Amino acid sequence: MYLGDETWWDLEDYFDDESLALVPLGSTEQHGPHLPLATDHLIAEAFAREAADRTGYLCTPTVNIGVSPHHKQFYGTMWVDAETFRSYIESLTRNLAYHGIDRVIYVNAHGGNVDPLREVGRRLRDDEVLYAIEWMWDESIPELIEEVFEQPGPHGGPKETSLIQYLDGDLVHDDRLTDARDGGLLDWENEDGVRVHGARTFYDAVDNTDNGVLGDQTDATAEKGEQLFEAAAEQLVELCEWLDAQPAEDLMPKDHR
Amino acid sequence: MYLGDETWWDLEDYFDDESLALVPLGSTEQHGPHLPLATDHLIAEAFAREAADRTGYLCTPTVNIGVSPHHKQFYGTMWVDAETFRSYIESLTRNLAYHGIDRVIYVNAHGGNVDPLREVGRRLRDDEVLYAIEWMWDESIPELIEEVFEQPGPHGGPKETSLIQYLDGDLVHDDRLTDARDGGLLDWENEDGVRVHGARTFYDAVDNTDNGVLGDQTDATAEKGEQLFEAAAEQLVELCEWLDAQPAEDLMPKDHR
Amino acid sequence: MYLGDETWWDLEDYFDDESLALVPLGSTEQHGPHLPLATDHLIAEAFAREAADRTGYLCTPTVNIGVSPHHKQFYGTMWVDAETFRSYIESLTRNLAYHGIDRVIYVNAHGGNVDPLREVGRRLRDDEVLYAIEWMWDESIPELIEEVFEQPGPHGGPKETSLIQYLDGDLVHDDRLTDARDGGLLDWENEDGVRVHGARTFYDAVDNTDNGVLGDQTDATAEKGEQLFEAAAEQLVELCEWLDAQPAEDLMPKDHR
Amino acid sequence: MYLGDETWWDLEDYFDDESLALVPLGSTEQHGPHLPLATDHLIAEAFAREAADRTGYLCTPTVNIGVSPHHKQFYGTMWVDAETFRSYIESLTRNLAYHGIDRVIYVNAHGGNVDPLREVGRRLRDDEVLYAIEWMWDESIPELIEEVFEQPGPHGGPKETSLIQYLDGDLVHDDRLTDARDGGLLDWENEDGVRVHGARTFYDAVDNTDNGVLGDQTDATAEKGEQLFEAAAEQLVELCEWLDAQPAEDLMPKDHR
Amino acid sequence: MYLGDETWWDLEDYFDDESLALVPLGSTEQHGPHLPLATDHLIAEAFAREAADRTGYLCTPTVNIGVSPHHKQFYGTMWVDAETFRSYIESLTRNLAYHGIDRVIYVNAHGGNVDPLREVGRRLRDDEVLYAIEWMWDESIPELIEEVFEQPGPHGGPKETSLIQYLDGDLVHDDRLTDARDGGLLDWENEDGVRVHGARTFYDAVDNTDNGVLGDQTDATAEKGEQLFEAAAEQLVELCEWLDAQPAEDLMPKDHR
Amino acid sequence: MYLGDETWWDLEDYFDDESLALVPLGSTEQHGPHLPLATDHLIAEAFAREAADRTGYLCTPTVNIGVSPHHKQFYGTMWVDAETFRSYIESLTRNLAYHGIDRVIYVNAHGGNVDPLREVGRRLRDDEVLYAIEWMWDESIPELIEEVFEQPGPHGGPKETSLIQYLDGDLVHDDRLTDARDGGLLDWENEDGVRVHGARTFYDAVDNTDNGVLGDQTDATAEKGEQLFEAAAEQLVELCEWLDAQPAEDLMPKDHR
Repeated sequence: MYLGDETWWDLEDYFDDESLALVPLGSTEQHGPHLPLATDHLIAEAFAREAADRTGYLCTPTVNIGVSPHHKQFYGTMWVDAETFRSYIESLTRNLAYHGIDRVIYVNAHGGNVDPLREVGRRLRDDEVLYAIEWMWDESIPELIEEVFEQPGPHGGPKETSLIQYLDGDLVHDDRLTDARDGGLLDWENEDGVRVHGARTFYDAVDNTDNGVLGDQTDATAEKGEQLFEAAAEQLVELCEWLDAQPAEDLMPKDHR
Repeated sequence: MYLGDETWWDLEDYFDDESLALVPLGSTEQHGPHLPLATDHLIAEAFAREAADRTGYLCTPTVNIGVSPHHKQFYGTMWVDAETFRSYIESLTRNLAYHGIDRVIYVNAHGGNVDPLREVGRRLRDDEVLYAIEWMWDESIPELIEEVFEQPGPHGGPKETSLIQYLDGDLVHDDRLTDARDGGLLDWENEDGVRVHGARTFYDAVDNTDNGVLGDQTDATAEKGEQLFEAAAEQLVELCEWLDAQPAEDLMPKDHR
Repeated sequence: MYLGDETWWDLEDYFDDESLALVPLGSTEQHGPHLPLATDHLIAEAFAREAADRTGYLCTPTVNIGVSPHHKQFYGTMWVDAETFRSYIESLTRNLAYHGIDRVIYVNAHGGNVDPLREVGRRLRDDEVLYAIEWMWDESIPELIEEVFEQPGPHGGPKETSLIQYLDGDLVHDDRLTDARDGGLLDWENEDGVRVHGARTFYDAVDNTDNGVLGDQTDATAEKGEQLFEAAAEQLVELCEWLDAQPAEDLMPKDHR
Repeated sequence: MYLGDETWWDLEDYFDDESLALVPLGSTEQHGPHLPLATDHLIAEAFAREAADRTGYLCTPTVNIGVSPHHKQFYGTMWVDAETFRSYIESLTRNLAYHGIDRVIYVNAHGGNVDPLREVGRRLRDDEVLYAIEWMWDESIPELIEEVFEQPGPHGGPKETSLIQYLDGDLVHDDRLTDARDGGLLDWENEDGVRVHGARTFYDAVDNTDNGVLGDQTDATAEKGEQLFEAAAEQLVELCEWLDAQPAEDLMPKDHR
Repeated sequence: MYLGDETWWDLEDYFDDESLALVPLGSTEQHGPHLPLATDHLIAEAFAREAADRTGYLCTPTVNIGVSPHHKQFYGTMWVDAETFRSYIESLTRNLAYHGIDRVIYVNAHGGNVDPLREVGRRLRDDEVLYAIEWMWDESIPELIEEVFEQPGPHGGPKETSLIQYLDGDLVHDDRLTDARDGGLLDWENEDGVRVHGARTFYDAVDNTDNGVLGDQTDATAEKGEQLFEAAAEQLVELCEWLDAQPAEDLMPKDHR
Repeated sequence: MYLGDETWWDLEDYFDDESLALVPLGSTEQHGPHLPLATDHLIAEAFAREAADRTGYLCTPTVNIGVSPHHKQFYGTMWVDAETFRSYIESLTRNLAYHGIDRVIYVNAHGGNVDPLREVGRRLRDDEVLYAIEWMWDESIPELIEEVFEQPGPHGGPKETSLIQYLDGDLVHDDRLTDARDGGLLDWENEDGVRVHGARTFYDAVDNTDNGVLGDQTDATAEKGEQLFEAAAEQLVELCEWLDAQPAEDLMPKDHR
């Protein structure tokens, strides 16, 4: 059920019967020469809507702009400061509790949002407002990703490319996949200089890559995208069901020992 | 030009040549028994994209959740506190300036966002970051609205109903227009008790209306929606052109006398 | 009853019996060549004290400096940022509740304070601390103002000029009324360029006027001032009585539908 | 020169020629059975206006409500949180710098404001905005106070009583001076329990006194008030002259050694 | 009992039986040519640990960096803004209450922390979280200090020098005591220019002293240090016992009169 | 060079010649039945001091209390909110820049501080104040750790146990190592329920472990601790040298592409 399409009359039953909401969040940031800036929020929205359709749980509208200062040197990247993002998400989530929501899944598709969302989840849980967790699609199917791609990325790699090819292929510049690979950083995992004697020394994507992306984009296809989407959507569906099955009191902080 | 669909490669020329951006903002809040909660952000997005299409100026993704605590008693209304909203908008706008944007139009479709956006605009201008103004479609065509409707609303009235009928008719429950009118407040302008001896005494929509909406919804048609959309979109196009034509220094605060 | 003049011994009965307070607020800002910078806080104080005298309700000391960045280019204008103003007013009002006050009228005489005060009122009401509303004298007698003046202003116009002529005539430079009119903006309502295609495009008073004021000041007299003062003070008295008569629970937010 | 009474036209010369401002600040708080709650802001205003009259320097309107949570248990005490107070004073002072003010004297008459004002002064100076110092009348004439009173107070004692008797005698309940003394704490300096093994252990006035005041109020007279006022006003005048004579660069932070 | 050395197993009994904690706080700032920058936090830690050893009450780890902007011009001084310091201390103290602590002594050895700690104590008490007071060793033995030294300082004077000579003599440059005295300000109490007509006019240590210290350091000996340490430690022990003996309800704010 | 032990005289040369500082940070939190609550800040301090000794770079005093709400259910855990921690660290680091420091290594030994420190580093770098990076000892020697331990932990495991056995063996309860292992979670990596369908579902240590620790503590020895310490200290030394060798401009954000 997509909240944005419903009237308040038609939502009454949901809030009477259920207490779970899916909140999609992404970013608007450079994804190389071949992918649109909307990549992350399109992906988040697609997963959240799909899981809502399959399960009947409520999906809210999407938060399109997140924590992306590390991509700022590339044209068009939009971002908000991390603390501002946390406040915005905290405020809107806190207010969902007014309608009786007591468990939230942040369907997230942007790495830069992960820590801020965990921190917001902690604030809300420690205040006993509600229980919120962050989910990223690729974290739910790590084996499949390793199986499908040799150099998955992460950022702007074949993993994300395949998904957008599947979800909205017109947005992908298929003729630039070689450019994406050759102007980017192919083997992120084994790159020198990303960590120096144990310290992560870079702050911005531009510090490591010329065109902002990682991995081998030429390995991407819409078919792989579909395969990934199906697998991860199913994981999200199962997460919804798991979360819905938890007793409310188990989701709140345990007492002092 | 819609920023979300573009790659950073394809945005370079825009940022080299232009310095104006359209930022659509709305809300996710009850709009009576007949309209979807997405109404305001759908409208904002439609106008901003249309003006961007007609003029070539850049339109960003939409901010879907705004300042709507006054609708909270109705199922599904989402909102953030006003100061949180201001910070979020200020942060994302401030960062647009990094790419060279020096003038922004907030294409807004929610009354509760107006004052916060004006305040953000002041902060940005007083700091000489950039010049941002707020635009609401109905403020641009007051005569036409008066001409077309006897009881336009505002909130959830025939004005907004017509627009959604035109933009995405499936989202309107046409069979509830009479319910909307009869369960709401028909004549907002002349209602007693909204102002008492000069003071606005109510805070929430629920204080005045049973179903959350104002005006005579039975007066709405998709044709009127199209007429309004065309007229206001044209106003926005002209505003873009006017704004683009202003010398940058004229947009900054004047010196002390 | 004026709180500032009383000892705590003499206030005990009031707080035992009553729960309403009048809080006057204004600004310290330019009002053209003819009116003192204190204009707005003098007016607010005069109305609040008068209503307190007539009704016996409690009036607090005045907040003299408000949200006036839009007048900064003129010598002597003092102001605080809007969020700072909100915090200051919220804090002092919240603390009135400690003594048992549960309803407050902000007797305001400055347009720039209106939205901030509404926002503070919302915070206090949504937190169920107390119920506060904002009142501006000219909003309570719109017909009389239209009847008395052809070009009332608003800012620094004959409306405010008459009031100060009546309240403290020595502070008005009567010999500059023609200067005020001729160096200002006579017909604010019909001025081009204040709104462009529906967007309010100006931020500062200096953007529209040379001397900072609006309307036809030559139309002001102390007699008109007295007439306005009497009429609006009576409105405020009636507002006090209306507010006092409301059951406390009716002033708090309604429950979720 | 009192800013509140002037028009912006008449202030131009001052801001062209001078760069010093006096800002009076007090509190609205209980002062025992005999003194009005306005005591502190009346005193601050009287000194600031007097010094402005004698010297020609600019005096702004008064900040009437300060940091008085320690008096809250007594009817009518108003207060704001310390950080809110700091923000409000910082914001209004910062904005005075826009007109060219580079040195400010906070003419303060409330102990609870002292530390917050010092902290604001530091922020403004460390940011090289301007130089602000805090002045309290009784700190300027300690010998005279010791000479005139055996038990001066401080809070609500004969020192403050005399001043109000002189400044506005109608506000003093002379028939309650014995009550004030007998129901309060006579000898504050030698009171046990105020400090325990070196730690100040009390937080609120009510922790030490029944009626909220200190010292021997029966020792107060309007004549003593005049004597104190004259002496301290003269100190403030000299402080203005001293401050005005300092080179601007001497008032800013020294460089790193 | 020192919290840092214990396991959580071994703390259970303490939290079951007791509710008092000692929190040492100091600064890291210049103390002249002869004393280490750690002086203040070493002293705070020494007193807090000693009192904990003698009484069995719990001592937490030390907060080493405090509010020292007034020493910034001297090499190596570290500091945080006052409001940041308050937040940090408030947060860690508030969380001690989670384990059942309801009374805290801030064992402080830096003048710049005094007012911030009092303010934090007020916030915590007014919110009825717990009762916290600030203690400085030299405030507990004023007569002894006057007796032992002719020019005690305060900052970096013989008082602090003696203590460090006693606590960790290797850290004192005994060969620079004459330099310390001759390059500093000997007689702080009688110095002209520190107060001008009642106003404290300086902000930074460098404004008054060349080498950053006050008093006659040549008067310091480890024996005097021991004497002071013993006397003040005993005061702190007695303060712990006094505080522990207070009924919890007596430590909370009194009701409104 | 340890800043806390030095006088400002003796620091002048360092600040003239060098611009790097090591800032140790840890936490005060439960580490199972066998390790002291100080574990993390002891480790951080030991590494930072050691690297400073070996290289001559400056080491500051330690921040002992960090972001540990996830351990709160165990007796004695101290913590501050993440945003408070960020402000505190940002403020003290920002002020190091006043003395000319332009590169900082946060020598951190607590996982909960990692993300906050990265965020602070970003703020400082984006504002072009200085370049700060976070280093954790175990991240610098992952192969060695895997080689030495089968079940390293992380929290309170043999890795940390060995280090404290080496650094200050008296603080370890060697007789509880079996308890630690058996009452904790042995195989963290392969534990079910820590991630559910890709989402990290737990917030607090108590959610997973009975006694708060992970790994096989019986595998710890002081010899292993020494081996780890030597290896990681050497990494930190090399990091210092690498960082010192970077041109200042390379450490600041790159320009917009």
